[in-house]
Amino acid sequence: MNSFGIRTDLALEAREGMVRAGEKLHGVRTQEYEYEKAGVRVTKVFVETKNAANQLGKPIGCYVTMEADSLGEPDEGYHREISECFRKELCQLVEEKKKKEEMAILVIGLGNRDVTADSLGPRILDNLFVTRHMVKLYGAAAVGERTVHLISALEPGVMAKTGMETAEIVSGVIKETKPDLLIVADALAARSTKRLNRTIQITDVGIQPGSGVGNHRNALTQESLGIPVIAIGVPTVVDAATIVGDALERLLGTEKIFRRSSFADLNNMYVTGKDVDEVVKRISFTISEGINAAFHAEGE
Amino acid sequence: MNSFGIRTDLALEAREGMVRAGEKLHGVRTQEYEYEKAGVRVTKVFVETKNAANQLGKPIGCYVTMEADSLGEPDEGYHREISECFRKELCQLVEEKKKKEEMAILVIGLGNRDVTADSLGPRILDNLFVTRHMVKLYGAAAVGERTVHLISALEPGVMAKTGMETAEIVSGVIKETKPDLLIVADALAARSTKRLNRTIQITDVGIQPGSGVGNHRNALTQESLGIPVIAIGVPTVVDAATIVGDALERLLGTEKIFRRSSFADLNNMYVTGKDVDEVVKRISFTISEGINAAFHAEGE
Amino acid sequence: MNSFGIRTDLALEAREGMVRAGEKLHGVRTQEYEYEKAGVRVTKVFVETKNAANQLGKPIGCYVTMEADSLGEPDEGYHREISECFRKELCQLVEEKKKKEEMAILVIGLGNRDVTADSLGPRILDNLFVTRHMVKLYGAAAVGERTVHLISALEPGVMAKTGMETAEIVSGVIKETKPDLLIVADALAARSTKRLNRTIQITDVGIQPGSGVGNHRNALTQESLGIPVIAIGVPTVVDAATIVGDALERLLGTEKIFRRSSFADLNNMYVTGKDVDEVVKRISFTISEGINAAFHAEGE
Amino acid sequence: MNSFGIRTDLALEAREGMVRAGEKLHGVRTQEYEYEKAGVRVTKVFVETKNAANQLGKPIGCYVTMEADSLGEPDEGYHREISECFRKELCQLVEEKKKKEEMAILVIGLGNRDVTADSLGPRILDNLFVTRHMVKLYGAAAVGERTVHLISALEPGVMAKTGMETAEIVSGVIKETKPDLLIVADALAARSTKRLNRTIQITDVGIQPGSGVGNHRNALTQESLGIPVIAIGVPTVVDAATIVGDALERLLGTEKIFRRSSFADLNNMYVTGKDVDEVVKRISFTISEGINAAFHAEGE
Repeated sequence: MNSFGIRTDLALEAREGMVRAGEKLHGVRTQEYEYEKAGVRVTKVFVETKNAANQLGKPIGCYVTMEADSLGEPDEGYHREISECFRKELCQLVEEKKKKEEMAILVIGLGNRDVTADSLGPRILDNLFVTRHMVKLYGAAAVGERTVHLISALEPGVMAKTGMETAEIVSGVIKETKPDLLIVADALAARSTKRLNRTIQITDVGIQPGSGVGNHRNALTQESLGIPVIAIGVPTVVDAATIVGDALERLLGTEKIFRRSSFADLNNMYVTGKDVDEVVKRISFTISEGINAAFHAEGE
Repeated sequence: MNSFGIRTDLALEAREGMVRAGEKLHGVRTQEYEYEKAGVRVTKVFVETKNAANQLGKPIGCYVTMEADSLGEPDEGYHREISECFRKELCQLVEEKKKKEEMAILVIGLGNRDVTADSLGPRILDNLFVTRHMVKLYGAAAVGERTVHLISALEPGVMAKTGMETAEIVSGVIKETKPDLLIVADALAARSTKRLNRTIQITDVGIQPGSGVGNHRNALTQESLGIPVIAIGVPTVVDAATIVGDALERLLGTEKIFRRSSFADLNNMYVTGKDVDEVVKRISFTISEGINAAFHAEGE
Repeated sequence: MNSFGIRTDLALEAREGMVRAGEKLHGVRTQEYEYEKAGVRVTKVFVETKNAANQLGKPIGCYVTMEADSLGEPDEGYHREISECFRKELCQLVEEKKKKEEMAILVIGLGNRDVTADSLGPRILDNLFVTRHMVKLYGAAAVGERTVHLISALEPGVMAKTGMETAEIVSGVIKETKPDLLIVADALAARSTKRLNRTIQITDVGIQPGSGVGNHRNALTQESLGIPVIAIGVPTVVDAATIVGDALERLLGTEKIFRRSSFADLNNMYVTGKDVDEVVKRISFTISEGINAAFHAEGE
Repeated sequence: MNSFGIRTDLALEAREGMVRAGEKLHGVRTQEYEYEKAGVRVTKVFVETKNAANQLGKPIGCYVTMEADSLGEPDEGYHREISECFRKELCQLVEEKKKKEEMAILVIGLGNRDVTADSLGPRILDNLFVTRHMVKLYGAAAVGERTVHLISALEPGVMAKTGMETAEIVSGVIKETKPDLLIVADALAARSTKRLNRTIQITDVGIQPGSGVGNHRNALTQESLGIPVIAIGVPTVVDAATIVGDALERLLGTEKIFRRSSFADLNNMYVTGKDVDEVVKRISFTISEGINAAFHAEGE
């Protein structure tokens, strides 16, 4: 958080902010490349030291940002090629964390299904191919694949409706069902409206306190849960105070003057696009298909 | 629209803007009173001349604004008292328009059910007591009321999903089913976040082009449809460019400097609250109950 | 309707019933073939005379029944091949009705979105590529296709919620927007549970009174609406009285003994499967994709 | 289960079946009374011995059945009086189980929100007043009540979508959040269509394996979970094989002839009413209001 208390859930934007402000960043390495056919640009930000983590406000780890202009656009094939790039990047992160060939994986869809901009996580679950119960009941043959992962899924809901921290629910279910890996999907807040509808972030650091559209309070991390946590996020909103602060900064050429408290009436308010329903529908489907492809290779 | 292109669907705010800017307003009359028990303040703005209409950007007619701090708050009784105030105000406007004792009334729920902040209109229909088909099939006795209105309801959807203007759909259905009165419910854009979650506007001028969260393009008015149109609206969003412009104005003490075009990246974006789902659920129920009570007096 | 008042919306089953009962059918021609790769069997029933229509209880016209065992099964590709067969059959029926190369087509999703088994029609609209507004606003170039159809879509809702006949709403919208062709999608009642989840019927006779899961009362036909009407239907339920009558017939070897009135408590009740949500989701997507492909050939 | 494998989740119907079959029942006591104003008849079935439990197929415990003809009917007040009777009966069962004045209570909404007939449990949660997080964050004063219960709520989803047994999820969450009492709400299968839309069952035995519309496989009981479990159920469906078997029995005067296996094609199929959406909406609201009133007495 800088002087504005500017908020972003994207490591890429946190880094850009530092660079723009002329601050020196040690311990942060970046890598960029492109999937040309799919029109996807990838930026990997590696936060490598504790100092860098503090400076950026992002824990040590790897943050993969995929950007594609067409991500929110209508497309009858629902982005098959982007889905395939996503699968590759996800598999790479999983590969580094995995301890055995066949894993039990719990996928958590964070967020509030009843608030369109916050419904990405739950909607990803809608198209997920879940297998744990079939394998438990009928054996590995039931899913007809070479490598059989046990996929389970949970939509924990939001604290205002459950009265419980998401972390309490997830922690309880993990202790009972013992997955090897947690994948958490969530809608994010970006700093800039330019990131909306065209960005996916995948990271191996899990979910930090205070991130996400709905401000989940507690962490979902390997430290807190005891298993590796990969977080998939898509920015669907910009914090309202941030957008005002940024507009001022752009127009007045300084970021020193105003403080977040100047915009107290914007607390708990966010900015989103009018077509957020279509965007969330498409991107959640693209991500589901990518997760499905990552963990259900048909008898190769 | 003033120099910013500031947008509000509330006549109350349009008037406040003029007053604040020190502009003289002729032809606008206001009346204020309170329902003390329910905690509801009412402001009626009567736009009485064509000049005033042009100045305000609001057509000639009566605009009733009800404000209640508790409107968006949880309440097991779902605002029975506010609902009753709303019924009274609605009945008064209807009374002036009605030509016969028993009316056929078509209620239109504008907006996009899949975008939470724009779902108020459709959600109002969910709790509406619809009777037209019963009376047509079984006679007035079917509804067991002293005064029998024929209530019908339609959720026309949004142009992005239907490919048709809302006005085309509504106009076709009116010609076919011949109601005496149209009631149109819609989510609105306010100028200030202070109006969100606590304001209901009822007006006898119908729906103007470009109003509503989803920017409906065409008018739904007595002029365009041939029958009286009463519009019920609740502000659930603030236009993103407006909020930035207003913040600048507040901080810099002038509204002359910046133009709407300075915030081109905020086009088609809006600001809303994180609990918009709960707010819309509650207020839509309160309004449904008010409409039901207005037109279904149990055999008094 | 035979002695039981057995109900089916499928011409194929109506014909089977006649044949099974040993009744002679003149004026009915059938044609059968298979799309082997997709595993789709097609039966076309041509009802050619008024007598045959009376005997079958199905109007003169062509009824295409597609059957595929895998139609309701999970499939990551969501039935691309079945979708392509459906497109071919739909195009053939449309071809015979069409009077010009570029058509304005209104697609109606009948049924009740809130009752899973009756939500097929509305859900088909969710994935439909609608273009009429874009062409009207920006010209044919907006959709970038060689042949540009104007696709519009409407979910009219059910009478219990609108107070209006579906036919009233559709008729009004047709008069206002003047499409050249109507496509109506609806959930159907089959006679046998074997047809559920694996059958699609396409017919050029439109929708008859009393058909569909929700018992729409009025016809949507070329005769009543003035433009050709193609109906797409998928059986998702069996009428409860029919299922009991059929079980009795099967067990007791006669259909003469019992009348529909023996099962008065089963009126307005239907039988459906426990996984009807998954089935409707998949089949509606397959049909949407087929319609999209039929009318949006990308710049061939 | 008798010779048909007739299925009912209602202890009342299980007992009726025995009585009708002329079987003697020892160890079962019943009590009947009426709330006259609300039009609610109550039948309490006390299963008191292990033998009786085996005979009935219902565990030892108390089963309260409330029947009200108007339960599924439209009513602007949404059944305030029935809600109050429900509250009384619920409080009585809770009273017997409670060990302290202020309890932590977890309410579970079983079933599949996407299948209308099975959505009762999840829909009850939609109107529940949840307080645990507020009390934890701000202290008891936050809810402004004399007796402060900590209410939390969870919609665990169904195994086909989560890959996990409901019992696994619930058990994990209980261990983590340590409630004193579990309340489980679910849609049930009745034997007779007459019970649909007019019956609520409350019992202190929890949820048994194989009950509910969606056939939950594992038990949710005090034995399995370690805390008292009160189950609230409303019959929304009748098993399809049961309805056919019952029709045969009624028509042919015997229950010995046919076995469940005669209706193999009806496995996993159920019978429900065409207005199940309206019925579930109303009854779930009535029950939510009853639960809210039971645990949130405003500062009496």
